[in-house]
Amino acid sequence: MLTVAELDRLCVVLVGSRNPLNIGAASRAMSNFGFPHLRVVHPYPVAFREARSAVDAEAVLTAAEEFQHLPAAVADCSLVVGTTGGARRSLQEPLHRLEAAAEVVRGHLRSGARVALLFGSEKVGLSSRDLAHCRLLLRIPTRDGHPSMNLGQAVAVVLYELIREDSAAAPEMAAEPSATAGDRERLISVLLQALSVGGYAHPGPHGSIEEKVRRLVRHLHLTQPDLQEWLGLLRQILWKLENPPPASRNRTGK
Amino acid sequence: MLTVAELDRLCVVLVGSRNPLNIGAASRAMSNFGFPHLRVVHPYPVAFREARSAVDAEAVLTAAEEFQHLPAAVADCSLVVGTTGGARRSLQEPLHRLEAAAEVVRGHLRSGARVALLFGSEKVGLSSRDLAHCRLLLRIPTRDGHPSMNLGQAVAVVLYELIREDSAAAPEMAAEPSATAGDRERLISVLLQALSVGGYAHPGPHGSIEEKVRRLVRHLHLTQPDLQEWLGLLRQILWKLENPPPASRNRTGK
Repeated sequence: MLTVAELDRLCVVLVGSRNPLNIGAASRAMSNFGFPHLRVVHPYPVAFREARSAVDAEAVLTAAEEFQHLPAAVADCSLVVGTTGGARRSLQEPLHRLEAAAEVVRGHLRSGARVALLFGSEKVGLSSRDLAHCRLLLRIPTRDGHPSMNLGQAVAVVLYELIREDSAAAPEMAAEPSATAGDRERLISVLLQALSVGGYAHPGPHGSIEEKVRRLVRHLHLTQPDLQEWLGLLRQILWKLENPPPASRNRTGK
Repeated sequence: MLTVAELDRLCVVLVGSRNPLNIGAASRAMSNFGFPHLRVVHPYPVAFREARSAVDAEAVLTAAEEFQHLPAAVADCSLVVGTTGGARRSLQEPLHRLEAAAEVVRGHLRSGARVALLFGSEKVGLSSRDLAHCRLLLRIPTRDGHPSMNLGQAVAVVLYELIREDSAAAPEMAAEPSATAGDRERLISVLLQALSVGGYAHPGPHGSIEEKVRRLVRHLHLTQPDLQEWLGLLRQILWKLENPPPASRNRTGK
Protein backbone atom coordinates (compact mmCIF):
# COMPACT_ATOMS: atom_id res chain seq x y z
CA MET A 1 0.00 0.00 0.00
CA LEU A 2 1.29 3.42 -0.91
CA THR A 3 1.28 6.21 1.64
CA VAL A 4 -0.09 9.65 0.89
CA ALA A 5 3.49 10.93 0.56
CA GLU A 6 4.25 8.18 -1.94
CA LEU A 7 1.11 8.86 -3.96
CA ASP A 8 2.19 12.49 -3.95
CA ARG A 9 5.53 11.70 -5.58
CA LEU A 10 4.02 10.31 -8.77
CA CYS A 11 3.03 12.51 -11.69
CA VAL A 12 0.79 11.27 -14.45
CA VAL A 13 1.95 12.99 -17.65
CA LEU A 14 -0.41 13.03 -20.63
CA VAL A 15 1.53 13.79 -23.80
CA GLY A 16 -0.41 15.28 -26.70
CA SER A 17 -3.88 14.19 -25.60
CA ARG A 18 -6.57 15.52 -27.91
CA ASN A 19 -9.76 14.21 -26.42
CA PRO A 20 -11.17 16.15 -23.46
CA LEU A 21 -13.23 13.13 -22.44
CA ASN A 22 -10.05 11.11 -22.12
CA ILE A 23 -8.25 13.79 -20.12
CA GLY A 24 -11.28 13.93 -17.85
CA ALA A 25 -11.35 10.14 -17.57
CA ALA A 26 -7.65 10.02 -16.69
CA SER A 27 -8.24 12.64 -13.99
CA ARG A 28 -11.14 10.69 -12.60
CA ALA A 29 -9.08 7.50 -12.28
CA MET A 30 -6.32 9.51 -10.60
CA SER A 31 -8.85 10.85 -8.13
CA ASN A 32 -10.29 7.36 -7.54
CA PHE A 33 -6.89 5.94 -6.67
CA GLY A 34 -5.53 8.97 -4.81
CA PHE A 35 -2.86 10.29 -7.18
CA PRO A 36 -3.14 14.11 -7.17
CA HIS A 37 -0.58 15.26 -9.76
CA LEU A 38 -1.52 15.57 -13.42
CA ARG A 39 0.71 17.19 -16.00
CA VAL A 40 -0.40 17.78 -19.56
CA VAL A 41 2.18 18.31 -22.28
CA HIS A 42 1.28 20.46 -25.28
CA PRO A 43 -2.42 19.79 -25.19
CA TYR A 44 -4.73 21.31 -27.68
CA PRO A 45 -5.82 24.19 -25.46
CA VAL A 46 -9.51 23.60 -26.02
CA ALA A 47 -9.19 19.95 -25.05
CA PHE A 48 -7.69 20.84 -21.74
CA ARG A 49 -10.22 23.57 -21.08
CA GLU A 50 -13.14 21.30 -21.86
CA ALA A 51 -11.71 18.55 -19.71
CA ARG A 52 -11.79 20.87 -16.73
CA SER A 53 -15.52 20.36 -16.63
CA ALA A 54 -15.21 16.59 -16.33
CA VAL A 55 -17.25 15.08 -13.56
CA ASP A 56 -15.77 13.96 -10.31
CA ALA A 57 -12.21 14.93 -10.99
CA GLU A 58 -12.27 18.64 -10.24
CA ALA A 59 -9.41 18.71 -7.74
CA VAL A 60 -7.00 16.84 -10.01
CA LEU A 61 -7.89 18.92 -13.07
CA THR A 62 -7.79 22.23 -11.25
CA ALA A 63 -4.30 21.50 -9.97
CA ALA A 64 -3.08 20.14 -13.32
CA GLU A 65 0.00 21.77 -14.80
CA GLU A 66 0.54 22.50 -18.48
CA PHE A 67 3.85 22.18 -20.26
CA GLN A 68 4.83 22.92 -23.83
CA HIS A 69 7.56 20.27 -23.95
CA LEU A 70 8.16 16.93 -22.32
CA PRO A 71 11.63 17.63 -20.83
CA ALA A 72 10.22 20.42 -18.66
CA ALA A 73 7.34 18.22 -17.53
CA VAL A 74 9.66 15.50 -16.21
CA ALA A 75 12.62 17.63 -15.10
CA ASP A 76 12.10 17.01 -11.38
CA CYS A 77 11.52 13.27 -11.71
CA SER A 78 14.30 10.72 -11.27
CA LEU A 79 12.42 7.86 -12.93
CA VAL A 80 10.53 8.45 -16.16
CA VAL A 81 8.27 5.58 -17.19
CA GLY A 82 6.66 5.25 -20.61
CA THR A 83 3.55 3.21 -21.33
CA THR A 84 3.32 1.68 -24.77
CA GLY A 85 1.52 -1.08 -26.57
CA GLY A 86 4.89 -2.11 -27.90
CA ALA A 87 3.88 -1.76 -31.53
CA ARG A 88 6.51 0.89 -32.15
CA ARG A 89 9.63 -0.54 -33.72
CA SER A 90 13.06 -0.48 -32.18
CA LEU A 91 12.32 0.33 -28.58
CA GLN A 92 15.57 1.31 -26.93
CA GLU A 93 14.65 -0.11 -23.55
CA PRO A 94 13.24 -3.50 -22.71
CA LEU A 95 9.46 -3.53 -22.42
CA HIS A 96 8.14 -4.91 -19.14
CA ARG A 97 4.70 -6.14 -18.23
CA LEU A 98 2.81 -3.80 -15.94
CA GLU A 99 2.96 -6.19 -12.97
CA ALA A 100 6.76 -6.17 -12.99
CA ALA A 101 7.22 -2.50 -13.83
CA ALA A 102 4.90 -1.51 -10.99
CA GLU A 103 7.32 -3.12 -8.52
CA VAL A 104 10.06 -0.82 -9.75
CA VAL A 105 7.82 2.25 -9.61
CA ARG A 106 6.67 1.49 -6.06
CA GLY A 107 10.27 0.97 -5.01
CA HIS A 108 11.23 4.38 -6.33
CA LEU A 109 8.26 6.10 -4.70
CA ARG A 110 9.09 4.43 -1.38
CA SER A 111 12.72 5.48 -1.60
CA GLY A 112 11.64 9.12 -1.81
CA ALA A 113 12.19 9.55 -5.54
CA ARG A 114 9.75 11.30 -7.86
CA VAL A 115 8.33 9.28 -10.74
CA ALA A 116 6.77 10.47 -14.00
CA LEU A 117 4.33 8.09 -15.66
CA LEU A 118 3.86 8.97 -19.34
CA PHE A 119 0.85 8.21 -21.50
CA GLY A 120 0.74 9.14 -25.17
CA SER A 121 -2.11 10.39 -27.30
CA GLU A 122 -5.01 8.13 -28.17
CA LYS A 123 -4.03 8.01 -31.80
CA VAL A 124 -0.30 7.45 -31.91
CA GLY A 125 0.80 6.80 -28.36
CA LEU A 126 4.23 8.00 -27.26
CA SER A 127 6.63 8.89 -30.07
CA SER A 128 10.16 7.53 -30.34
CA ARG A 129 11.28 10.95 -29.22
CA ASP A 130 9.06 10.75 -26.11
CA LEU A 131 10.22 7.21 -25.39
CA ALA A 132 13.86 8.35 -25.53
CA HIS A 133 13.22 10.17 -22.24
CA CYS A 134 12.05 6.99 -20.51
CA ARG A 135 14.20 4.78 -18.33
CA LEU A 136 11.52 2.10 -18.02
CA LEU A 137 8.88 1.04 -20.52
CA LEU A 138 5.78 -0.82 -19.53
CA ARG A 139 2.95 -2.44 -21.37
CA ILE A 140 -0.43 -3.45 -20.04
CA PRO A 141 -0.78 -7.19 -20.75
CA THR A 142 -3.49 -6.91 -23.36
CA ARG A 143 -3.93 -9.66 -25.91
CA ASP A 144 -1.87 -9.56 -29.08
CA GLY A 145 -4.92 -9.21 -31.31
CA HIS A 146 -6.06 -6.00 -29.62
CA PRO A 147 -3.26 -4.27 -27.70
CA SER A 148 -4.48 -0.67 -27.98
CA MET A 149 -6.39 0.55 -24.94
CA ASN A 150 -8.55 3.57 -24.42
CA LEU A 151 -6.45 6.23 -22.64
CA GLY A 152 -8.71 6.64 -19.61
CA GLN A 153 -8.88 2.89 -19.16
CA ALA A 154 -5.12 2.49 -19.50
CA VAL A 155 -4.53 5.14 -16.83
CA ALA A 156 -7.04 3.43 -14.52
CA VAL A 157 -5.44 0.01 -14.94
CA VAL A 158 -1.88 1.23 -14.37
CA LEU A 159 -2.82 3.26 -11.28
CA TYR A 160 -4.82 0.35 -9.90
CA GLU A 161 -1.80 -1.93 -10.29
CA LEU A 162 0.28 0.61 -8.36
CA ILE A 163 -2.11 0.74 -5.40
CA ARG A 164 -3.19 -2.89 -5.32
CA GLU A 165 -2.02 -4.80 -2.30
CA ASP A 166 -0.01 -7.94 -2.42
CA SER A 167 2.75 -9.45 -0.40
CA ALA A 168 5.44 -7.82 -2.50
CA ALA A 169 9.07 -7.91 -1.47
CA ALA A 170 10.68 -4.97 0.29
CA PRO A 171 11.61 -2.12 -2.01
CA GLU A 172 15.16 -1.36 -2.90
CA MET A 173 16.20 1.71 -1.02
CA ALA A 174 18.49 4.11 -2.78
CA ALA A 175 21.24 5.15 -0.36
CA GLU A 176 21.57 8.54 -1.99
CA PRO A 177 19.02 10.56 -3.88
CA SER A 178 18.79 9.65 -7.54
CA ALA A 179 19.64 12.23 -10.15
CA THR A 180 16.56 13.84 -11.66
CA ALA A 181 15.73 13.97 -15.34
CA GLY A 182 16.67 17.66 -15.30
CA ASP A 183 20.13 16.85 -13.91
CA ARG A 184 20.59 14.21 -16.55
CA GLU A 185 19.68 16.71 -19.26
CA ARG A 186 22.53 18.96 -18.10
CA LEU A 187 24.97 16.06 -18.34
CA ILE A 188 23.64 15.14 -21.79
CA SER A 189 24.02 18.73 -22.91
CA VAL A 190 27.69 18.90 -21.87
CA LEU A 191 28.42 15.57 -23.54
CA LEU A 192 26.78 16.66 -26.78
CA GLN A 193 28.74 19.91 -26.72
CA ALA A 194 31.98 17.98 -26.22
CA LEU A 195 31.13 15.63 -29.05
CA SER A 196 30.18 18.54 -31.24
CA VAL A 197 33.47 20.37 -30.64
CA GLY A 198 35.17 17.06 -31.24
CA GLY A 199 33.50 16.86 -34.62
CA TYR A 200 31.57 13.73 -33.74
CA ALA A 201 28.09 15.16 -33.68
CA HIS A 202 26.02 18.05 -34.82
CA PRO A 203 23.94 19.17 -31.88
CA GLY A 204 20.32 19.74 -32.72
CA PRO A 205 16.84 19.17 -31.44
CA HIS A 206 16.91 15.61 -32.74
CA GLY A 207 19.20 13.14 -34.37
CA SER A 208 20.62 9.75 -33.62
CA ILE A 209 23.69 10.91 -31.67
CA GLU A 210 21.48 12.77 -29.22
CA GLU A 211 19.23 9.77 -28.74
CA LYS A 212 22.28 7.56 -28.27
CA VAL A 213 23.79 9.82 -25.61
CA ARG A 214 20.44 10.19 -23.89
CA ARG A 215 20.00 6.43 -23.77
CA LEU A 216 23.52 5.88 -22.43
CA VAL A 217 23.13 8.50 -19.71
CA ARG A 218 19.71 7.17 -18.78
CA HIS A 219 21.26 3.77 -18.10
CA LEU A 220 23.78 5.12 -15.61
CA HIS A 221 21.90 4.92 -12.28
CA LEU A 222 23.49 8.21 -11.30
CA THR A 223 23.06 9.60 -7.84
CA GLN A 224 22.79 13.32 -7.36
CA PRO A 225 26.31 13.77 -5.87
CA ASP A 226 27.96 11.57 -8.50
CA LEU A 227 26.23 13.43 -11.29
CA GLN A 228 27.61 16.71 -9.99
CA GLU A 229 31.12 15.25 -10.02
CA TRP A 230 30.71 13.97 -13.57
CA LEU A 231 29.50 17.39 -14.65
CA GLY A 232 32.63 18.95 -13.16
CA LEU A 233 34.95 16.54 -14.96
CA LEU A 234 33.19 16.83 -18.29
CA ARG A 235 33.01 20.61 -18.16
CA GLN A 236 36.77 20.65 -17.62
CA ILE A 237 37.25 18.48 -20.71
CA LEU A 238 34.85 20.64 -22.69
CA TRP A 239 36.63 23.83 -21.63
CA LYS A 240 39.94 22.40 -22.81
CA LEU A 241 38.42 21.30 -26.10
CA GLU A 242 37.25 24.84 -26.68
CA ASN A 243 40.52 26.36 -25.50
CA PRO A 244 43.40 24.26 -26.83
CA PRO A 245 46.54 24.34 -24.66
CA PRO A 246 49.84 25.97 -25.73
CA ALA A 247 51.25 22.57 -26.65
CA SER A 248 48.87 22.23 -29.56
CA ARG A 249 49.49 25.82 -30.62
CA ASN A 250 53.21 25.02 -30.77
CA ARG A 251 52.52 21.88 -32.72
CA THR A 252 50.33 23.63 -35.24
CA GLY A 253 52.93 26.37 -35.53
CA LYS A 254 55.53 23.95 -36.84
CA MET B 1 -2.81 -16.79 -16.60
CA LEU B 2 -6.27 -17.72 -17.81
CA THR B 3 -6.68 -20.06 -20.76
CA VAL B 4 -8.94 -19.27 -23.69
CA ALA B 5 -11.48 -21.77 -22.31
CA GLU B 6 -11.40 -20.01 -18.93
CA LEU B 7 -11.78 -16.56 -20.49
CA ASP B 8 -14.71 -18.02 -22.40
CA ARG B 9 -16.51 -19.04 -19.20
CA LEU B 10 -16.81 -15.50 -17.87
CA CYS B 11 -19.68 -13.18 -18.85
CA VAL B 12 -19.57 -9.47 -18.22
CA VAL B 13 -23.12 -8.36 -17.47
CA LEU B 14 -23.98 -4.67 -17.73
CA VAL B 15 -27.18 -3.95 -15.86
CA GLY B 16 -29.17 -0.89 -16.90
CA SER B 17 -26.35 0.95 -18.64
CA ARG B 18 -27.54 4.17 -20.28
CA ASN B 19 -24.46 5.60 -21.85
CA PRO B 20 -23.46 4.11 -25.22
CA LEU B 21 -19.93 5.40 -24.75
CA ASN B 22 -19.64 3.38 -21.56
CA ILE B 23 -21.03 0.22 -23.15
CA GLY B 24 -18.53 0.71 -25.95
CA ALA B 25 -15.71 1.28 -23.45
CA ALA B 26 -16.62 -1.84 -21.51
CA SER B 27 -16.59 -3.84 -24.75
CA ARG B 28 -13.22 -2.44 -25.68
CA ALA B 29 -11.67 -3.44 -22.35
CA MET B 30 -13.17 -6.92 -22.77
CA SER B 31 -11.60 -7.17 -26.19
CA ASN B 32 -8.25 -5.90 -24.84
CA PHE B 33 -8.14 -8.57 -22.16
CA GLY B 34 -9.65 -11.39 -24.18
CA PHE B 35 -13.08 -11.84 -22.59
CA PRO B 36 -15.59 -12.41 -25.42
CA HIS B 37 -18.97 -12.58 -23.68
CA LEU B 38 -20.97 -9.44 -23.01
CA ARG B 39 -24.55 -9.49 -21.81
CA VAL B 40 -26.64 -6.38 -21.48
CA VAL B 41 -29.69 -6.33 -19.22
CA HIS B 42 -32.61 -4.06 -20.07
CA PRO B 43 -30.59 -1.41 -21.79
CA TYR B 44 -32.21 1.62 -23.24
CA PRO B 45 -32.43 0.30 -26.79
CA VAL B 46 -30.86 3.33 -28.36
CA ALA B 47 -27.86 3.13 -26.04
CA PHE B 48 -27.09 -0.38 -27.08
CA ARG B 49 -27.55 0.36 -30.78
CA GLU B 50 -25.22 3.34 -30.66
CA ALA B 51 -22.63 1.42 -28.72
CA ARG B 52 -22.39 -1.08 -31.56
CA SER B 53 -20.40 1.51 -33.46
CA ALA B 54 -17.77 1.79 -30.75
CA VAL B 55 -14.24 1.55 -32.02
CA ASP B 56 -12.19 -1.55 -31.69
CA ALA B 57 -14.75 -3.68 -29.93
CA GLU B 58 -16.86 -4.89 -32.85
CA ALA B 59 -16.54 -8.60 -32.18
CA VAL B 60 -17.59 -8.29 -28.55
CA LEU B 61 -20.50 -5.96 -29.31
CA THR B 62 -21.72 -7.95 -32.28
CA ALA B 63 -21.88 -11.11 -30.20
CA ALA B 64 -23.44 -9.35 -27.19
CA GLU B 65 -26.71 -10.76 -25.91
CA GLU B 66 -29.63 -8.72 -24.65
CA PHE B 67 -31.83 -9.70 -21.72
CA GLN B 68 -34.87 -8.07 -20.24
CA HIS B 69 -34.21 -9.28 -16.72
CA LEU B 70 -31.18 -10.16 -14.67
CA PRO B 71 -32.18 -13.72 -13.67
CA ALA B 72 -32.23 -14.80 -17.32
CA ALA B 73 -28.88 -13.17 -17.95
CA VAL B 74 -27.15 -15.14 -15.20
CA ALA B 75 -29.14 -18.36 -15.37
CA ASP B 76 -26.29 -20.49 -16.75
CA CYS B 77 -23.66 -19.15 -14.34
CA SER B 78 -22.77 -20.90 -11.10
CA LEU B 79 -21.06 -17.89 -9.55
CA VAL B 80 -22.60 -14.43 -9.80
CA VAL B 81 -20.31 -11.61 -8.72
CA GLY B 82 -21.48 -8.06 -8.08
CA THR B 83 -19.24 -5.01 -8.23
CA THR B 84 -20.11 -2.16 -5.94
CA GLY B 85 -18.52 0.87 -4.37
CA GLY B 86 -19.95 -0.37 -1.11
CA ALA B 87 -22.00 2.72 -0.46
CA ARG B 88 -25.26 0.78 -0.56
CA ARG B 89 -26.59 -0.12 2.85
CA SER B 90 -27.21 -3.59 4.16
CA LEU B 91 -25.17 -5.70 1.79
CA GLN B 92 -26.19 -9.29 2.28
CA GLU B 93 -22.79 -10.72 1.41
CA PRO B 94 -19.38 -9.67 2.70
CA LEU B 95 -17.66 -7.18 0.44
CA HIS B 96 -14.21 -8.25 -0.74
CA ARG B 97 -11.46 -6.20 -2.22
CA LEU B 98 -10.92 -6.92 -5.90
CA GLU B 99 -7.54 -8.61 -5.33
CA ALA B 100 -9.12 -11.24 -3.07
CA ALA B 101 -12.33 -11.66 -5.04
CA ALA B 102 -10.34 -12.24 -8.23
CA GLU B 103 -8.75 -15.31 -6.65
CA VAL B 104 -12.19 -16.78 -6.10
CA VAL B 105 -13.31 -15.95 -9.65
CA ARG B 106 -10.20 -17.49 -11.21
CA GLY B 107 -10.70 -20.61 -9.10
CA HIS B 108 -14.23 -21.01 -10.39
CA LEU B 109 -13.23 -20.47 -14.01
CA ARG B 110 -10.45 -23.05 -13.66
CA SER B 111 -12.83 -25.56 -12.13
CA GLY B 112 -14.99 -25.38 -15.25
CA ALA B 113 -17.74 -23.20 -13.77
CA ARG B 114 -19.31 -20.24 -15.52
CA VAL B 115 -19.05 -16.87 -13.81
CA ALA B 116 -21.17 -13.74 -14.29
CA LEU B 117 -19.54 -10.44 -13.41
CA LEU B 118 -22.15 -7.72 -12.86
CA PHE B 119 -21.68 -3.99 -13.27
CA GLY B 120 -24.49 -1.55 -12.53
CA SER B 121 -25.46 1.66 -14.26
CA GLU B 122 -23.26 4.73 -14.06
CA LYS B 123 -25.75 6.57 -11.93
CA VAL B 124 -26.96 4.18 -9.29
CA GLY B 125 -24.80 1.10 -9.60
CA LEU B 126 -26.35 -2.27 -8.85
CA SER B 127 -29.63 -2.12 -6.95
CA SER B 128 -30.30 -4.09 -3.77
CA ARG B 129 -32.45 -6.30 -5.94
CA ASP B 130 -29.55 -6.92 -8.34
CA LEU B 131 -27.13 -7.54 -5.49
CA ALA B 132 -29.47 -10.17 -4.07
CA HIS B 133 -28.50 -12.37 -7.03
CA CYS B 134 -24.83 -12.18 -6.16
CA ARG B 135 -22.91 -14.78 -4.21
CA LEU B 136 -19.78 -12.64 -4.05
CA LEU B 137 -19.45 -8.88 -3.85
CA LEU B 138 -16.32 -7.05 -4.80
CA ARG B 139 -15.15 -3.51 -4.61
CA ILE B 140 -12.30 -1.88 -6.46
CA PRO B 141 -10.00 -0.40 -3.78
CA THR B 142 -10.66 3.24 -4.58
CA ARG B 143 -10.11 5.87 -1.91
CA ASP B 144 -12.89 6.64 0.51
CA GLY B 145 -13.21 10.21 -0.69
CA HIS B 146 -13.97 9.20 -4.26
CA PRO B 147 -15.16 5.60 -4.57
CA SER B 148 -17.31 5.93 -7.69
CA MET B 149 -15.55 4.87 -10.88
CA ASN B 150 -16.46 5.39 -14.49
CA LEU B 151 -18.07 2.19 -15.79
CA GLY B 152 -15.63 1.57 -18.62
CA GLN B 153 -12.69 2.11 -16.29
CA ALA B 154 -14.16 -0.18 -13.63
CA VAL B 155 -14.62 -2.97 -16.18
CA ALA B 156 -11.04 -2.50 -17.40
CA VAL B 157 -9.60 -2.63 -13.88
CA VAL B 158 -11.55 -5.74 -12.83
CA LEU B 159 -10.71 -7.65 -16.02
CA TYR B 160 -7.07 -6.65 -15.73
CA GLU B 161 -6.96 -8.02 -12.18
CA LEU B 162 -8.38 -11.31 -13.48
CA ILE B 163 -5.72 -11.74 -16.16
CA ARG B 164 -2.72 -10.27 -14.33
CA GLU B 165 0.12 -12.61 -13.51
CA ASP B 166 1.53 -12.64 -10.03
CA SER B 167 4.66 -14.40 -11.14
CA ALA B 168 5.75 -11.63 -13.48
CA ALA B 169 9.08 -10.92 -11.83
CA ALA B 170 10.38 -7.42 -11.27
CA PRO B 171 12.66 -6.51 -14.12
CA GLU B 172 16.35 -6.26 -13.68
CA MET B 173 17.04 -2.73 -14.74
CA ALA B 174 20.08 -4.06 -16.61
CA ALA B 175 19.16 -7.23 -18.46
CA GLU B 176 22.49 -7.29 -20.27
CA PRO B 177 25.82 -8.61 -18.94
CA SER B 178 27.62 -6.25 -16.61
CA ALA B 179 30.90 -4.75 -17.64
CA THR B 180 33.92 -6.49 -16.11
CA ALA B 181 36.56 -4.79 -13.98
CA GLY B 182 38.92 -4.95 -16.96
CA ASP B 183 36.41 -3.12 -19.14
CA ARG B 184 36.00 -0.48 -16.49
CA GLU B 185 39.76 0.00 -16.31
CA ARG B 186 39.85 0.78 -20.04
CA LEU B 187 37.15 3.40 -19.55
CA ILE B 188 38.97 4.85 -16.56
CA SER B 189 42.18 5.00 -18.55
CA VAL B 190 40.58 6.95 -21.39
CA LEU B 191 38.94 9.34 -18.96
CA LEU B 192 42.22 9.97 -17.14
CA GLN B 193 43.99 10.58 -20.44
CA ALA B 194 41.31 13.08 -21.47
CA LEU B 195 41.58 14.84 -18.14
CA SER B 196 45.37 14.86 -18.39
CA VAL B 197 45.36 16.45 -21.85
CA GLY B 198 42.79 18.84 -20.50
CA GLY B 199 45.21 19.85 -17.78
CA TYR B 200 42.93 18.64 -15.01
CA ALA B 201 44.97 15.66 -13.82
CA HIS B 202 48.38 14.20 -13.84
CA PRO B 203 48.09 10.54 -14.78
CA GLY B 204 49.99 8.19 -12.54
CA PRO B 205 49.68 4.95 -10.62
CA HIS B 206 47.99 6.76 -7.76
CA GLY B 207 46.56 10.12 -6.90
CA SER B 208 43.23 11.52 -5.86
CA ILE B 209 41.91 12.26 -9.34
CA GLU B 210 42.42 8.66 -10.36
CA GLU B 211 40.64 7.40 -7.27
CA LYS B 212 37.82 9.79 -7.90
CA VAL B 213 37.36 8.67 -11.50
CA ARG B 214 37.58 5.01 -10.51
CA ARG B 215 34.95 5.48 -7.82
CA LEU B 216 32.65 7.36 -10.18
CA VAL B 217 32.96 4.70 -12.91
CA ARG B 218 32.38 1.92 -10.39
CA HIS B 219 29.10 3.54 -9.39
CA LEU B 220 27.80 3.49 -12.93
CA HIS B 221 26.68 -0.17 -13.07
CA LEU B 222 27.58 -0.23 -16.75
CA THR B 223 26.56 -3.08 -18.99
CA GLN B 224 29.07 -4.51 -21.46
CA PRO B 225 27.41 -3.02 -24.58
CA ASP B 226 26.94 0.39 -23.00
CA LEU B 227 30.54 0.47 -21.85
CA GLN B 228 31.73 -0.17 -25.41
CA GLU B 229 29.61 2.74 -26.62
CA TRP B 230 30.99 5.05 -23.93
CA LEU B 231 34.53 4.03 -24.87
CA GLY B 232 33.81 4.94 -28.48
CA LEU B 233 32.44 8.35 -27.57
CA LEU B 234 35.24 9.17 -25.14
CA ARG B 235 37.99 8.01 -27.48
CA GLN B 236 36.58 10.36 -30.08
CA ILE B 237 36.74 13.23 -27.61
CA LEU B 238 40.26 12.23 -26.56
CA TRP B 239 41.42 12.05 -30.16
CA LYS B 240 40.15 15.55 -30.81
CA LEU B 241 41.81 16.83 -27.65
CA GLU B 242 45.11 15.50 -28.91
CA ASN B 243 44.52 16.71 -32.46
CA PRO B 244 42.91 20.13 -32.32
CA PRO B 245 40.71 20.98 -35.31
CA PRO B 246 41.68 23.57 -37.97
CA ALA B 247 39.53 26.17 -36.25
CA SER B 248 41.93 26.35 -33.29
CA ARG B 249 44.95 26.39 -35.58
CA ASN B 250 43.43 29.40 -37.30
CA ARG B 251 42.81 31.05 -34.01
CA THR B 252 46.35 30.42 -32.80
CA GLY B 253 47.67 31.68 -36.14
CA LYS B 254 46.33 35.16 -35.53
